[in-house]
Amino acid sequence: MAERIIIAVDAMGGDYAPEEIVKGAIQAVQEMRMEVILVGKREEITPILKKEANTENFPIRVCHAPQVVDMAESPSEVLRQKKDTSIKIALELVKKGEAHGVFSAGNSGATLALAMFILGRLKGVKRPALAGIIPTPEGYTIMIDVGGVVDCRAYHLVQFAIMGHVFAKYILNVSNPRVGLLNIGEEPLKGNELVKETYTFLEKSPLNFVGNIEGKDILWHKADVVVCDGFVGNVALKLGEGVVESLLTLVRQEVKRSFVSKVGLILAKRLLKRVFKKLDYSEYGGAPLLGINGTVIIGHGRSEAKAIKNGIKMAATFVKKNINAHLEKGLKEHETFMPGRLKEVLS
Amino acid sequence: MAERIIIAVDAMGGDYAPEEIVKGAIQAVQEMRMEVILVGKREEITPILKKEANTENFPIRVCHAPQVVDMAESPSEVLRQKKDTSIKIALELVKKGEAHGVFSAGNSGATLALAMFILGRLKGVKRPALAGIIPTPEGYTIMIDVGGVVDCRAYHLVQFAIMGHVFAKYILNVSNPRVGLLNIGEEPLKGNELVKETYTFLEKSPLNFVGNIEGKDILWHKADVVVCDGFVGNVALKLGEGVVESLLTLVRQEVKRSFVSKVGLILAKRLLKRVFKKLDYSEYGGAPLLGINGTVIIGHGRSEAKAIKNGIKMAATFVKKNINAHLEKGLKEHETFMPGRLKEVLS
Repeated sequence: MAERIIIAVDAMGGDYAPEEIVKGAIQAVQEMRMEVILVGKREEITPILKKEANTENFPIRVCHAPQVVDMAESPSEVLRQKKDTSIKIALELVKKGEAHGVFSAGNSGATLALAMFILGRLKGVKRPALAGIIPTPEGYTIMIDVGGVVDCRAYHLVQFAIMGHVFAKYILNVSNPRVGLLNIGEEPLKGNELVKETYTFLEKSPLNFVGNIEGKDILWHKADVVVCDGFVGNVALKLGEGVVESLLTLVRQEVKRSFVSKVGLILAKRLLKRVFKKLDYSEYGGAPLLGINGTVIIGHGRSEAKAIKNGIKMAATFVKKNINAHLEKGLKEHETFMPGRLKEVLS
Repeated sequence: MAERIIIAVDAMGGDYAPEEIVKGAIQAVQEMRMEVILVGKREEITPILKKEANTENFPIRVCHAPQVVDMAESPSEVLRQKKDTSIKIALELVKKGEAHGVFSAGNSGATLALAMFILGRLKGVKRPALAGIIPTPEGYTIMIDVGGVVDCRAYHLVQFAIMGHVFAKYILNVSNPRVGLLNIGEEPLKGNELVKETYTFLEKSPLNFVGNIEGKDILWHKADVVVCDGFVGNVALKLGEGVVESLLTLVRQEVKRSFVSKVGLILAKRLLKRVFKKLDYSEYGGAPLLGINGTVIIGHGRSEAKAIKNGIKMAATFVKKNINAHLEKGLKEHETFMPGRLKEVLS
């Protein structure tokens, strides 16, 4: 393997693929010492690369993949029927040791399923989880899980807490991350059976557990890591995005409808731009899949170049900081709270 | 019973009780032919009533209750230990036939528990649900359940769908309400076990089922009724409110920090005010508890007079339109999809 970190990028995944992916990759290798392999249809990628890159010395290669996974395809269909998709070949590059990590802004369900199938899980991990990085005015909050596991048991959530803790510590550089449990009230006895059971475990764990966190508190950064099952997390994440987008649309409509002076409008728009910048997800650009035996970062489907760039850089940082070794160590240290041991803890 | 509709109002429930409650009650009886019984500490209510009402001819009476339920008290504590709270006495007025319905902006968990205990359920209802009325730019969406039942089975969700349908039809006047299932994707096979099973029932039901609805679509009014379990619904509701509030706070901070002209600021603020007005929950002012053998509307804890007024008016409308008869009829018509019958449907 080369000394330089190599990230395989799914050039065909995402709403603005391959243009924005290629642009993002070029920006990433300009800002960070690393190499990118763009995986996808060579005939589509090469012209963009030639047009966008003003030199041929970029550490970017193309690896041809004839098939593309559509956003709406079910993971099981993809697993059964599609043998040569860009995301699959990207993951296989990691398996073969030709790349250190993967970034994709494509179909997240299919990426997760293929990553499980090709790379497998880290030792001790029951189910890998998708960690969403939520921008808040006070800093970033990790929400885990946001769609990896939709039918959770308490031990899944406990593992999510440990993995979120490790990620916050080593990637977001939070020294003693506050871990909260997403719930419908602050009191310990609130919630459904799942969170009530999870609460009892987290309370006894060595994690910096700050108790229950309500939906309204996520944006006030009351915890660095917010633990939830993947169904709740995914609904919440999409709802949050939806609310922000709806408000933006409403503001645009009002601006069009208003008969106020041009100056006022410009000022209003500038003001709002500053506000919404604080909630911009493209700063981190990706949600890591934690618990996979390899590095896999999933980008937002609507990512443009900047978010792609940051997602690719996150993948390289993930490799550089050897996050998976920290995850395994963290999970081992918290073994008392791990699957097989839960019965003992309970009895 | 008097001809006029009588609503018992918990004068001690809510963050701004009793002042705003009394004011809201006065406004309600001014706008709608009805009577209000303010239940709570007479010594606190009477002076406010005297001060706010400019005549003694208002159809408002006071019914003394010496105890108050705190917002943080657990329902089981309240049930066991507090005998003479304002919310309990208000519900007992309905039980005794001295009032037709109850409105409270207090502790919703305790109100639900007491309503179940004192009034019981409608015939055929497995578990009553709290129906949140979500303001969207395109109109109102009912989200059911938003905190009544946190551990749901598919038949609970099917009943929520039927009850939401009836409420949308008779209170929001939607002729053939579109019913959607809150999920993490649009495709039928998405989601956890609970929603996948619920989907198969709703698909076969005579309801106007429009399939899965994602969090981001709620605000675009893709359905008139959005069905979910109470844990997910409560998290989502609070998160949505939290996002809107965070944005408002950020705007205020930016306005303070800016060195732009006064005119620009005033225009920007006016613009935002119009936008946020479209997302104002106080227009309806309350979430009905559907499936209770009586009329119970729960208001937002932070309700001020306008929201209280609208919540009380909603309670009166609920009684006037005999919603519970429609609920029982609706549940009976959809009996194939009801609890005991689910096994047959499945086999």
